[in-house]
Amino acid sequence: MFMVERMVEPIFKRLVIIGIGLIGSSITRGARAYGGIADKIVICDTSPAALARAEELGLGDEYTSDPAKAVAGADGVILCAPVGTYAALAQAIAPHLAPGCVLSDVGSTKQSVMQDITPFVPANVAFVPAHPIAGTEFSGPDAGLADLFRGRWSLLTPPAGTAEAAIVKIETMWKILGAQTARMDAAHHDRVIAIVSHLPHLIAFTICGTADDLAGETRGEVLQFAASGFRDFTRIAASDPVMWRDIFLNNKDALLEMFARFSEDAQAMARAVRKGDADYIEDKINRSRKIRKSLIDIKQA
Amino acid sequence: MFMVERMVEPIFKRLVIIGIGLIGSSITRGARAYGGIADKIVICDTSPAALARAEELGLGDEYTSDPAKAVAGADGVILCAPVGTYAALAQAIAPHLAPGCVLSDVGSTKQSVMQDITPFVPANVAFVPAHPIAGTEFSGPDAGLADLFRGRWSLLTPPAGTAEAAIVKIETMWKILGAQTARMDAAHHDRVIAIVSHLPHLIAFTICGTADDLAGETRGEVLQFAASGFRDFTRIAASDPVMWRDIFLNNKDALLEMFARFSEDAQAMARAVRKGDADYIEDKINRSRKIRKSLIDIKQA
Repeated sequence: MFMVERMVEPIFKRLVIIGIGLIGSSITRGARAYGGIADKIVICDTSPAALARAEELGLGDEYTSDPAKAVAGADGVILCAPVGTYAALAQAIAPHLAPGCVLSDVGSTKQSVMQDITPFVPANVAFVPAHPIAGTEFSGPDAGLADLFRGRWSLLTPPAGTAEAAIVKIETMWKILGAQTARMDAAHHDRVIAIVSHLPHLIAFTICGTADDLAGETRGEVLQFAASGFRDFTRIAASDPVMWRDIFLNNKDALLEMFARFSEDAQAMARAVRKGDADYIEDKINRSRKIRKSLIDIKQA
Repeated sequence: MFMVERMVEPIFKRLVIIGIGLIGSSITRGARAYGGIADKIVICDTSPAALARAEELGLGDEYTSDPAKAVAGADGVILCAPVGTYAALAQAIAPHLAPGCVLSDVGSTKQSVMQDITPFVPANVAFVPAHPIAGTEFSGPDAGLADLFRGRWSLLTPPAGTAEAAIVKIETMWKILGAQTARMDAAHHDRVIAIVSHLPHLIAFTICGTADDLAGETRGEVLQFAASGFRDFTRIAASDPVMWRDIFLNNKDALLEMFARFSEDAQAMARAVRKGDADYIEDKINRSRKIRKSLIDIKQA
């Protein structure tokens, strides 16, 4: 009985995806592949090229560059644009959101997203911030994968008082897409993600620049002889510049705290190298291996 | 005629591999797979477990834990142990090296290797230092792959006056194993490799420790929600502790110079985040993407 009902009644009648990049197009592909998420998918992007490509790929049922028009009559709206655009987007769509609509997002920084969006959310609309921890180094509507979220986490940071039914709708969507879900405080989320994702990206972007600054012949050889260590760093560093710029600026406090901790530890490692402290170095490397092993044990590596 | 002659006469009659880890066992596997490298392969390791496993895997023709015995009568010897062991190894084998033997190594640090080994090399033995830029995060005799070096570089840093015939033997071996070769000055090698390999490893080891230091609940969540950025870092950080400890200590000057450059750049990036300098951040990320693209263009990514 439940199965039949679920197949007849997907979570959303009209689901709007605003921003059809890697994450947005993975949601639409997953919604098509697995079913049960939306009767009709409306794709909105302010980039004419991205919108045209989404239509060529047949990722949705309707296409528009106007967010206000897109959300009219929708019962689900998910912001999938870079987080720096959220405040303006929220202001633009707020007057057009239908009563009972569930508004969500996929931004990597949750405190800033809530600060930017919450003031505009009408009383009869539920706002359920979410962050799927998944990605590749590719971007744009072609980059999406129906199974991008499979086996990954999607973290929800609903403010106190958010309607439980609305939270469950967003959780159910992520579960259909193959993710596990967890609810947590936005500030806590931002610290955890600063160390596992934002700081590694800041470091990767930086070291590529450091290499690029080496003069003349050496720079060519850096590229030519790039060993495995550097290759992994450049893979991370190939991610979307505007998205990452916005993430850094919108998780400033947690990112700078984690950077300060990392800098202290890196200085200590450099000091051990300078002093020839073999035991210290070996101990630190051994700890890293243990963390790697823990990741493998819980299937996140 | 040349082909027949080459098949009848491999480069070495008796080739000794000292240290049967990832690199050593990849050389022996490649020698078997491609032919033309050695009539007989002698495997030497001071670890009884590694030696026994190499024999179980049938990686060589003879097995011994005694380096002095191993090199007797050999016309080729390649040191594949961690670079910290090279000075003692060179001292142990030097009196037993046959006239005309070619001695080589695979260490990641070339100035220290030359300082440690050169004083012991007899006048009638040629020393041809080499560094294959290849690897995985795995170690030990089981980790080797016949095609580990395919499409990679092997950098040779022969001192002035080294017999050309000896250099060509080592170059030919690496070419049979699928690598490209280049000759360069040892000091130059150490700077280039410091930025493409040694510093990325130091950073990866460090950030895993920084995460591990986060107290209590957060640490569990760091593991649980490890996003792609952190996963790549832990992959690098899973490498062999003793090997990397030795590399750091033996390329101290170049590594600390590159670390200082990186630290300056990372501080500048953190300052841009603190000040909200969006243009600076985006510019740095765009430069990283260009480096990534260059790596793909020259097939090193």
